[in-house]
Amino acid sequence: MKFFHLADLHLGRTLHKYSLIEDQKYFLDFVIKQTDQHNPDAIVIAGDIYDRAIPSAEATQLFDYFLTELSKRECSTMIISGNHDSATRLSYAGNFFREFNIHLATEPKEQVETIVLNLDQAYYFYLLPFFKPVNIKNLYPETEIDTYQQALEQIISGIDLSLPGKHILIAHQFFINQSGEAIMSDSEQLSVGGLDRIQAELVKDFDYVALGHLHQPHHVQYENVRYSGSPLVYSASELARPKFLSMIEMNSEPGFKLHKIPFEPLHPVYLIEGKFAALINQARENPSEAYIYINLSDYEPIPDLAIRFKRFYPRLLEVRTPYFKRSADSFNALSAAPNELSIGQLFALFHKEETGRIISDSDQIIIQELEEKVN
Amino acid sequence: MKFFHLADLHLGRTLHKYSLIEDQKYFLDFVIKQTDQHNPDAIVIAGDIYDRAIPSAEATQLFDYFLTELSKRECSTMIISGNHDSATRLSYAGNFFREFNIHLATEPKEQVETIVLNLDQAYYFYLLPFFKPVNIKNLYPETEIDTYQQALEQIISGIDLSLPGKHILIAHQFFINQSGEAIMSDSEQLSVGGLDRIQAELVKDFDYVALGHLHQPHHVQYENVRYSGSPLVYSASELARPKFLSMIEMNSEPGFKLHKIPFEPLHPVYLIEGKFAALINQARENPSEAYIYINLSDYEPIPDLAIRFKRFYPRLLEVRTPYFKRSADSFNALSAAPNELSIGQLFALFHKEETGRIISDSDQIIIQELEEKVN
Repeated sequence: MKFFHLADLHLGRTLHKYSLIEDQKYFLDFVIKQTDQHNPDAIVIAGDIYDRAIPSAEATQLFDYFLTELSKRECSTMIISGNHDSATRLSYAGNFFREFNIHLATEPKEQVETIVLNLDQAYYFYLLPFFKPVNIKNLYPETEIDTYQQALEQIISGIDLSLPGKHILIAHQFFINQSGEAIMSDSEQLSVGGLDRIQAELVKDFDYVALGHLHQPHHVQYENVRYSGSPLVYSASELARPKFLSMIEMNSEPGFKLHKIPFEPLHPVYLIEGKFAALINQARENPSEAYIYINLSDYEPIPDLAIRFKRFYPRLLEVRTPYFKRSADSFNALSAAPNELSIGQLFALFHKEETGRIISDSDQIIIQELEEKVN
Repeated sequence: MKFFHLADLHLGRTLHKYSLIEDQKYFLDFVIKQTDQHNPDAIVIAGDIYDRAIPSAEATQLFDYFLTELSKRECSTMIISGNHDSATRLSYAGNFFREFNIHLATEPKEQVETIVLNLDQAYYFYLLPFFKPVNIKNLYPETEIDTYQQALEQIISGIDLSLPGKHILIAHQFFINQSGEAIMSDSEQLSVGGLDRIQAELVKDFDYVALGHLHQPHHVQYENVRYSGSPLVYSASELARPKFLSMIEMNSEPGFKLHKIPFEPLHPVYLIEGKFAALINQARENPSEAYIYINLSDYEPIPDLAIRFKRFYPRLLEVRTPYFKRSADSFNALSAAPNELSIGQLFALFHKEETGRIISDSDQIIIQELEEKVN
């Protein structure tokens, strides 16, 4: 049995004001092609189909297109809602989709929605949409449920893992290892305070846990508790880990096999670092359609940075320079008692504030000489 | 062949801040019951499914429920988008619906989407979603199309009405008779300037034209060019004409038969007129769950009107009293040259402004006496 594990599509998302819809369609077309090539028995999407509760019309159109294509193929599709999705909106037309083996779970239920694929053995897929403790509390008013951990414990207690076959949980929550660690990026919307965290140990007895929520592909403590990651890079912090399409293969033997199907995005995301003079030359020589972050190491102010790079990098995302790294300390020093400082001292603070560096001795001397001339 | 002609559901609409979703569900359940009773071959919905381009989640949920129920029945469902609908959003899952004989037309096409029911003869249904001239112009860039009338002429020229059988056009536009008249209400969103108007004569050769857009049930010049009207009352101006469910019956004979299936809404809309004392007594004796407009004929200011009626009419919509009917004329007179008027004249204007009536001679004398005392 093989299935694709996807999550965090975030259809309709923008990256620094650039619409990613074309890039997202490119990825979904890639999934369709891979479906034709690998004939997976199932396609699992572990939440955050859309980027917001009221998705854009073009985002719904794209997802409709994807589902229509999948409905023409043999595989079952299993989808749960994530914290970014509106459960009600995502559930629209669910009864019609089901007739084409497309299963949408958007509301937590006492009995977790279960799809069984009877192949060489039974494969149980448990579709657990994103929940907050209160959603589960409403299902079990008599039980003490205050935390995400307690909520999931309650849900899992209703699942019989002793049934012969394989058991796959699909969820969209924030799992951590025994040390409380997780691999996050800047593009997730997480709860403040960490109340949303659940110990991975709680779900380790499933044969595979197909997770969504965190955008970097990784497993949490146990190899079978895995985030597929988002298909596209949604923030600079995700550049470290390459994206791929996860295909999980399992049979009656214990364990599973993870196939990392490499995916080349329509427009990759790059981070370029260096001096302006070198980078602008490089840009001129090799213009690029990629999404590009630039970290400049020049301390001098350079005018019209974005405009100059954008001629060669039409999908320029951001140019960062140390020139703009203002230190909160220098502001505090300035606001403390500016009239008690000499012009030389004030200028030194101003210099640090504007450039992030301490003024050089030679520059300091020039300022002192000027100050003497003025006085 | 029988079909239901519906239009202007405006799911998600509110009436003076009251959600109508429960009332709308009640109507759709009524349609489902009538479907079971009359077994229509088709259900036609001539646009404005939703009240706005981004419908509320509960509105989409209600429509999903309705379509799911219809999909279990034998009839074909044909739906066009109206000016209130977002074509793209309404089109979501359309490929899935089609497999259940639910046809959604949301974008005008060169070849009007046509559904043929082959029964005792062929019945051609032409699904023409709401269009603006520019939409049709885009399809025929070579043709001069500036007006709605020209646009529809162009579309109709592609329809062959000589094919044996019956021809039914489904449209959501503003049709007028040869004198330019139409029966409107306060709840429609119409173009200013009347550019959106189309002569009914243009479509008179269809066997039936199932229209949406205007909310009062009526035909325009020709008996076969008909607005079904909205199922519920969406403004006080619609109270004059009772609502009903239109069932159209036709066979190989010329013409058609209109069955008006009476519909009792969950909460009717009433307009009550009279003096406060009588009406509040009546309300106390017969509290009502209906939606109620009240027109008071008292000229005296009465405090807390809405609160007092709402105890007995929890769905009170509005209380109008002549006390609040300020005349624009009196304001103009006042602002003209107040310092040139005597106190008596000013008070007479103030009296008219506040009560809508000219001050009585006896009251005028009292004011004059007071004025003399002051001077």
